[in-house]
Amino acid sequence: MRLAVDGMGGDNAPQSIIEGIYLGLEAYPNLHVQLYGDEAKMASYVKQHDRLTVIHCTEVIEGDDEPVRAIRRKKDASMVRAAQAVKDGEADAVLSAGNTGALMSAGLFIVGRIKGVERPALAPTLPTMDKQGFVFLDVGANADSKPNHLYQFARMGAVYAERVRGIGNPRVGLLNIGTEEGKGSELVKETYNLLKEAPINFIGNVESRDLLNGVADVVVTDGFTGNMVLKTLEGTAINIFSALKDVLMSSTKTKMGAMLIKNDLRSMKSLMDYTEYGGAALFGLNEPVIKAHGSSNANAIFNAIRQAVLMMEHDVSNTMKEAVGKE
Amino acid sequence: MRLAVDGMGGDNAPQSIIEGIYLGLEAYPNLHVQLYGDEAKMASYVKQHDRLTVIHCTEVIEGDDEPVRAIRRKKDASMVRAAQAVKDGEADAVLSAGNTGALMSAGLFIVGRIKGVERPALAPTLPTMDKQGFVFLDVGANADSKPNHLYQFARMGAVYAERVRGIGNPRVGLLNIGTEEGKGSELVKETYNLLKEAPINFIGNVESRDLLNGVADVVVTDGFTGNMVLKTLEGTAINIFSALKDVLMSSTKTKMGAMLIKNDLRSMKSLMDYTEYGGAALFGLNEPVIKAHGSSNANAIFNAIRQAVLMMEHDVSNTMKEAVGKE
Repeated sequence: MRLAVDGMGGDNAPQSIIEGIYLGLEAYPNLHVQLYGDEAKMASYVKQHDRLTVIHCTEVIEGDDEPVRAIRRKKDASMVRAAQAVKDGEADAVLSAGNTGALMSAGLFIVGRIKGVERPALAPTLPTMDKQGFVFLDVGANADSKPNHLYQFARMGAVYAERVRGIGNPRVGLLNIGTEEGKGSELVKETYNLLKEAPINFIGNVESRDLLNGVADVVVTDGFTGNMVLKTLEGTAINIFSALKDVLMSSTKTKMGAMLIKNDLRSMKSLMDYTEYGGAALFGLNEPVIKAHGSSNANAIFNAIRQAVLMMEHDVSNTMKEAVGKE
Repeated sequence: MRLAVDGMGGDNAPQSIIEGIYLGLEAYPNLHVQLYGDEAKMASYVKQHDRLTVIHCTEVIEGDDEPVRAIRRKKDASMVRAAQAVKDGEADAVLSAGNTGALMSAGLFIVGRIKGVERPALAPTLPTMDKQGFVFLDVGANADSKPNHLYQFARMGAVYAERVRGIGNPRVGLLNIGTEEGKGSELVKETYNLLKEAPINFIGNVESRDLLNGVADVVVTDGFTGNMVLKTLEGTAINIFSALKDVLMSSTKTKMGAMLIKNDLRSMKSLMDYTEYGGAALFGLNEPVIKAHGSSNANAIFNAIRQAVLMMEHDVSNTMKEAVGKE
């Protein structure tokens, strides 16, 4: 298994990326990593390893670069080179913690879309209170979607949940404003009718207030709504934990209270940490493309590598091709 | 000011509704309340008051009634009678904690839409961490929207923020997947262009992760997205507080910690309580229609009454009519 990694993407690059890679190399004896980036900047973190190849690149895609233009112009950027390695058959998957839009463009224009898949989808696995998590897509690869796109998202999400997450006959739900059939926008009503006939375990509509309760293993929505829901979840959690911290630090009395609960609180907080489940996968491309969170530490990168390894091992791209591409 | 109240709607009806009414009567000497409901069921909570009239009704709209059918068939339901009182000029506004869909239908078909307003919108005021709150619309009066609907939502939201919430030149934001102009679905891109030319303080796109930080005074979105975001906020907050409670109750040590922080924690939790800001108002109707939360206690009902009073006092429906209806 050969994984191409963008060494320069994300807030903590290259250090956390490289530390994560060593964790991955240790855990997976079959894994070979190609690390793309600025050799001078990476040098102090890189140690000799027989399954690690460093490839020097002169350019970097920045967080505020316009995605499509950046991919087209910065031909020697670490992200572009890593995607190109997959395209050229030199690597089997690509991983980056950099500019999400640019990675989606690199996936679409360099790695390439599975023939028959109309739109790729960005699919993170989000946490649930029971620690099982669920696959959520699309969270923003597309601003506008059609029913058949959502149908394909559901098929690909089911393949991923089964192959990578090891869930037999995964429950697929359609995100909607109510659970009854016939609810919602024209888009979701038409999608509902398609999913009823799909060869998946479709459990009907699910509501966003139940997502964290593990109401489904795969939740399908359009990229605009998915992006909103994802950022609302993040924003709400961050604000509540921040307010809680203020409470705990507000007086000597509460600081004493904080001492008594801090360990348990930490493990509760890690419940909400979705980097535990890996990065967001781009579904519908010829080979696995993984977006690790921009703020990934070494452990988050390791989780994204594990995810890439599982996608490669279980041949997820080809299974999606068989499920959706040929219809 | 004459307010028609549905005495039978909501989880805690009629007790909390009636207790809330007495709080309202005490606070607002000009307020006259018409209470619609089953006299036998309300009798034990009703005390004689010279500004309270009780009107007996034989029917009740249940939470699971199909909205439009219920409104049409249950002519003697407390909610229908209350709306009819407004239509007949016997009351100036209507308030219910019952079936949201049915109240929206009663608003649309009985109270009536302002001529020129294409779609009504359901608009709660949501909490922010700085306790200022923001008006959020639409949260589900419509499953599909057009750019001009969102334009009208923005105009009506600005009127409400200014008149009822007392915010001078309120900042109006458009909910989107990114802050840059040109981002998002076709719907939001077209809406953006309309809002740029609108006679409001349009501050551009806002992201859902920033909502609780008070990024705008009015946030405009379509009813599908708004409903999703609202329920994600609720679901996330409920789950985190529930997990926090589990942490605090998990051992003797954490229980001691809980004792030390509980007062401060309670005030933090009340930060997230949006019934503090009243109910959700239905914008675009001839007279104010207020939906109090289904689980409203007496205080939440009082807050919704205060909101209705402010809407009547500041002639919000007519101001919206002037702002939007005549264009």
